[in-house]
Amino acid sequence: MRYGRVSVDGEPRWARMDDEVVHLLAGSPLDGDPAVESSRPITEAAFLPPVVPFVFYAVGLNYRGHIDHARATGREVAVPERPEVGYRANNALIGHGEAIRVPPDMTGRFEAEGEVVAVVGRRVRNASRAEAQESVFGWTIGNDVSAREWQHADRTFWRSKNSDTFKPMGPWITTDVDPMAQTTTVRVNGEVGAKFPTGDMVFDPWDFIVEASRYITFFPGDVLWMGADSNCQIAPGDTVEVEVTGIGVLSNPVRRDNREPERSPE
Amino acid sequence: MRYGRVSVDGEPRWARMDDEVVHLLAGSPLDGDPAVESSRPITEAAFLPPVVPFVFYAVGLNYRGHIDHARATGREVAVPERPEVGYRANNALIGHGEAIRVPPDMTGRFEAEGEVVAVVGRRVRNASRAEAQESVFGWTIGNDVSAREWQHADRTFWRSKNSDTFKPMGPWITTDVDPMAQTTTVRVNGEVGAKFPTGDMVFDPWDFIVEASRYITFFPGDVLWMGADSNCQIAPGDTVEVEVTGIGVLSNPVRRDNREPERSPE
Repeated sequence: MRYGRVSVDGEPRWARMDDEVVHLLAGSPLDGDPAVESSRPITEAAFLPPVVPFVFYAVGLNYRGHIDHARATGREVAVPERPEVGYRANNALIGHGEAIRVPPDMTGRFEAEGEVVAVVGRRVRNASRAEAQESVFGWTIGNDVSAREWQHADRTFWRSKNSDTFKPMGPWITTDVDPMAQTTTVRVNGEVGAKFPTGDMVFDPWDFIVEASRYITFFPGDVLWMGADSNCQIAPGDTVEVEVTGIGVLSNPVRRDNREPERSPE
Repeated sequence: MRYGRVSVDGEPRWARMDDEVVHLLAGSPLDGDPAVESSRPITEAAFLPPVVPFVFYAVGLNYRGHIDHARATGREVAVPERPEVGYRANNALIGHGEAIRVPPDMTGRFEAEGEVVAVVGRRVRNASRAEAQESVFGWTIGNDVSAREWQHADRTFWRSKNSDTFKPMGPWITTDVDPMAQTTTVRVNGEVGAKFPTGDMVFDPWDFIVEASRYITFFPGDVLWMGADSNCQIAPGDTVEVEVTGIGVLSNPVRRDNREPERSPE
């Protein structure tokens, strides 16, 4: 099953999604099995981020290719010895189809990272591995857009990774897929810029939930972004797609921030 | 005016608070001026965190005394040149009176930091200084409980600062106070462990909102914890109070995590 959220008359609505139809639901599928209220063609849907998390977890340096890439730039990077979560911020979330906006004063590399995302479905603390697996409602796709000069220069990831629009997520949550058996592909204007086995992780999603839940309660709707193997540079005028097989394709155009006059892409 | 949230029959309710009475409200004061539905003695109130933020911002190294203290421990610490926000996580929030729980495997210094907290009342982006000032609904108190060995050993602040119960906030939001003209005092079992002028900040709250809002939209209910000048060590059996004059007193007992059998405090 696929579940997501769409904007209907300016209000967020949960929906079940087929290939061609969006079925608007009476409530959240995280709370049970809500009835279908009405349906419409998916081509008319305005996608929202599939959930707004209570806590927005993200994992860094969780693919060996990413670690090798970071080392190639001269940084000293150790392979993480334990699964440690980090954080992103809700203001940065946008849905499938919405525009990633490049701040007018950003310089340096601007990059997309395609990630599989675990969506938590139930409250869990001190989880066993089996409980961690049962706690995941489904899987979606994230694009961890990053401004590299700011990432290296600033004390935190505040604007490098959490500027408005820097966290596309969607298009929906797929409940019946094995994320470890998939392939992640990032395309820029249709050309493949990164492709890697989704399951080539240093630690898998359940490792993180087991370890973090020794100290932290996870809540329904929390998301855990699992990191990426490699990056693709993006620029205004581009369209960036992240595909995770078995889930779908998250596509977003890249635009200059609308605080500046719109110009034709170079 | 003072506004906060209390638990009534297991449900969170907004309330306006006097010295002796809690007036339950029909809605959120962030959305308007809700009517009073009923009242009860404040001694019967179970306080919740006054808001659950959309984004939970926190500031590090924002008092010169804190920077001097960090340097005294041998760390190289530069005075921040720009107001850069960091983040904390909602799972860690507890209200006034709730217990801070010490994880059974925590070792090393366990410390309280008393902070004044700005609560955002309206959506703001690209704020002028005047707009930043108008965007703040009111002020509350936070205790940035920190496990120092984990803070220095881990790659992120995940369990050092975001373990469950590590972020007491409250008891309420005060709308009519100048946070820069107050005094912050932290008491452990009634003894003063830290005392400093609340306004002795490197950057003030509006500096942070002006700078961050160049890239980030703030939303109603977002909180911005402003940092602390100095710390106090705490341990199971203690009661820790943070007072910010003009706002109130945030008090929380410290207990061993209830995953271990309860023992009498040493």
